Amino acid sequence: MRLGIYGYGNLGRGVECAALQNPDMELVRVFTRRSPADVKTLTGVPVVSADDVKMYRDDIDVMIVCGGSATDLPVMTPMLAEHFNVVDSFDNHSHIPDHFAAVRDAANAGGHLALISAGWDPGMFSLARLYASCILPEGKDYTFWGKGVSQGHSDAVRRIKGVKNAKQYTCPVEAALEAVRSGSMPELTTRQKHTRLVYVVAEEGADKAYIENAIKTMPNYFDEYDTTVNFISEEEFNKNHSGLAHGGFVIRTGKTGMNKEHTHVIEYSLKLDSNPEFTTSVLVAYARAALRMKANDGKTGCFTVLDVPPAYLSTLSDDDLRAHCL
Amino acid sequence: MRLGIYGYGNLGRGVECAALQNPDMELVRVFTRRSPADVKTLTGVPVVSADDVKMYRDDIDVMIVCGGSATDLPVMTPMLAEHFNVVDSFDNHSHIPDHFAAVRDAANAGGHLALISAGWDPGMFSLARLYASCILPEGKDYTFWGKGVSQGHSDAVRRIKGVKNAKQYTCPVEAALEAVRSGSMPELTTRQKHTRLVYVVAEEGADKAYIENAIKTMPNYFDEYDTTVNFISEEEFNKNHSGLAHGGFVIRTGKTGMNKEHTHVIEYSLKLDSNPEFTTSVLVAYARAALRMKANDGKTGCFTVLDVPPAYLSTLSDDDLRAHCL
Repeated sequence: MRLGIYGYGNLGRGVECAALQNPDMELVRVFTRRSPADVKTLTGVPVVSADDVKMYRDDIDVMIVCGGSATDLPVMTPMLAEHFNVVDSFDNHSHIPDHFAAVRDAANAGGHLALISAGWDPGMFSLARLYASCILPEGKDYTFWGKGVSQGHSDAVRRIKGVKNAKQYTCPVEAALEAVRSGSMPELTTRQKHTRLVYVVAEEGADKAYIENAIKTMPNYFDEYDTTVNFISEEEFNKNHSGLAHGGFVIRTGKTGMNKEHTHVIEYSLKLDSNPEFTTSVLVAYARAALRMKANDGKTGCFTVLDVPPAYLSTLSDDDLRAHCL
Repeated sequence: MRLGIYGYGNLGRGVECAALQNPDMELVRVFTRRSPADVKTLTGVPVVSADDVKMYRDDIDVMIVCGGSATDLPVMTPMLAEHFNVVDSFDNHSHIPDHFAAVRDAANAGGHLALISAGWDPGMFSLARLYASCILPEGKDYTFWGKGVSQGHSDAVRRIKGVKNAKQYTCPVEAALEAVRSGSMPELTTRQKHTRLVYVVAEEGADKAYIENAIKTMPNYFDEYDTTVNFISEEEFNKNHSGLAHGGFVIRTGKTGMNKEHTHVIEYSLKLDSNPEFTTSVLVAYARAALRMKANDGKTGCFTVLDVPPAYLSTLSDDDLRAHCL
């Protein structure tokens, strides 16, 4: 199958790497809004201007849309879904219904299939929540994130006066995780579930007390959490805090039996060295599935990971899957 | 939807309890090979003879086949699939392709839909293996079981001369789990992954040294494992070892990046107070999905959990799932 990459940042490069691990995939073109001559791909895939994308509608089976959820994907995915089968990683949970409707209308207009919000949350975590809640209807769900880098929180800290660079880690509280795993179904506040850990490189002569207070009291981002602020040198920052690790836990505990006498714990967890590379590994697997939903089942319109038969993700035949994976 | 239960042991009772937690389900009849007058159900569902099952073909939307995988299900599921939509928990991994073929032929002959091997392994663990291997093609899978009761191993110990009662627990080796979670992709022998823990109630005057040796050297069951044998009183056995807890871990670690420089760990785990009640909770959710695959998509024949769109398991609408679960 022939893939296109639309947008060439961390996600675009991740798709390029992931495609190498899937021998049934060929990467045809990278589309960029920058000047194509300024973009060098990791594997030498040709780069062309995003303006010319429609010229490639017969050359690409699935376009993987690699943009940010705030402003890029709400525009890009509907635009592209009219001309291509598309997959994206739209992750702004509260806006998924709106994004779905816009992409669905565009995909239907063009007779294409779109699969949105494929990644790990939403994505694999959504699947973990769905399966667990259907198996244990009388139970309670918990999602913990981290330890991992939140780009949004890091950006927010960098906007504070006197901050040269910053990285924010979201950390699950171990005691809360253990309480959940015990099956006691605790009610947990925001503060009880996660802490925030910030590493700041301050500008020369900056007011560190001001910075620390500005971080800890920042509404929505930090004020509801216990936050630790560490000031470090630029050398230490570059050495120890340049990665994009992330991960998390989806746990459901539930009861069964005539008197609800039995407790069960279902836990799904991820520990990821690279958030964008894992996200794009999911995108690439779902590109395969999207093409099959269209080719095998004749489906068009918009779908999510919740709609996809798991076997469609695999290169193995149904016989092989039953013999070796089941 | 109207459910039937075929076979009323631990699994049949588990289905009966699980159906209570799913308001869209009504339990119509329990079918038994025993004398129906001798069978009392937990909730008062009427019991009829298995001989009369075909009289109920218009009254039952999905029959849940509750038998053992060794001798019951290979006969029961094909027989019933000709007359009903069926779901079973066939768990003899190496015989799944044969069972699939027999059930498929019967279901096709009757125009019904069958879903086999729904439980946790095979079942939820199969899904965990499939998703993880498709996302991280360059990686390695590990499945650990326990701590939990193995009925087959307990039965094998009970057949030894001088053993009055016995329970065998399969235990994952914590050091092996940690080595896997580190992402080092260790090669692990059978002995390195699990230990076996046996509690035995010996008959009066039995030769305990003989029993212990007979257990530890038993081919296939124990000889490849480090096994601990504890002799206990009947009172202690009944007090502490009457449950059917089980569980386990499916872990895949894999590499991404141009130079495979990033490691990722995907872990799915279950901690179950009651193996049969959890298994039947899965069966009941897949009964809902099976009926939808037939009603919505017009499918007939045989399927497994790998073929089922996850959303079909849920009572929620697609709109609600996208808004609240994704």
